[in-house]
Amino acid sequence: MSARLTDAERLEALAGLDAWTLLAGREAIRRTYAFADFNAAFGFMTRVALLAEKMDHHPEWFNVYRTVEVTLTTHDAGGLTLRDIDLARAMDRIAGQT
Amino acid sequence: MSARLTDAERLEALAGLDAWTLLAGREAIRRTYAFADFNAAFGFMTRVALLAEKMDHHPEWFNVYRTVEVTLTTHDAGGLTLRDIDLARAMDRIAGQT
Repeated sequence: MSARLTDAERLEALAGLDAWTLLAGREAIRRTYAFADFNAAFGFMTRVALLAEKMDHHPEWFNVYRTVEVTLTTHDAGGLTLRDIDLARAMDRIAGQT
Repeated sequence: MSARLTDAERLEALAGLDAWTLLAGREAIRRTYAFADFNAAFGFMTRVALLAEKMDHHPEWFNVYRTVEVTLTTHDAGGLTLRDIDLARAMDRIAGQT
């Protein structure tokens, strides 16, 4: 299990994740992706699902047609960990290839 | 395009969809499915996604680990139509087989 990031570690880790925002009421990060259509959006979700299962770290996500809103946090740790940062980076990479 | 259901039609159509609830603030129906794990939940979503794409009628849905919360409405019609009822029935059928 990853350890919860300190404030300094969190700031450093979030550098380069410009499209993600820290939630106000909860220690979690969020990004909304918009794709061309449902096919592309669900294709993205499928690729992420396979990866998330392999990492044993799963997103909270909401999909309506071509948009996917993702929230990442580490429930076990009660906040953000490096696993969230790693998954966020991987999702950005996959979204860029879709 | 399906026509928006009348109140009487809606009542009749919702018979047999016992696990679904009508939202209070919005003409839409909602059901939360719980599966054994993420594999089963996303397997369900994948089967539904293929069907939704074929029907050209897509759910709003939120997934976190083993649960999937689904909201159905027909945006074009500004409310519930038979397409929502058909998709709800199909999702129940698929969930039962997962």
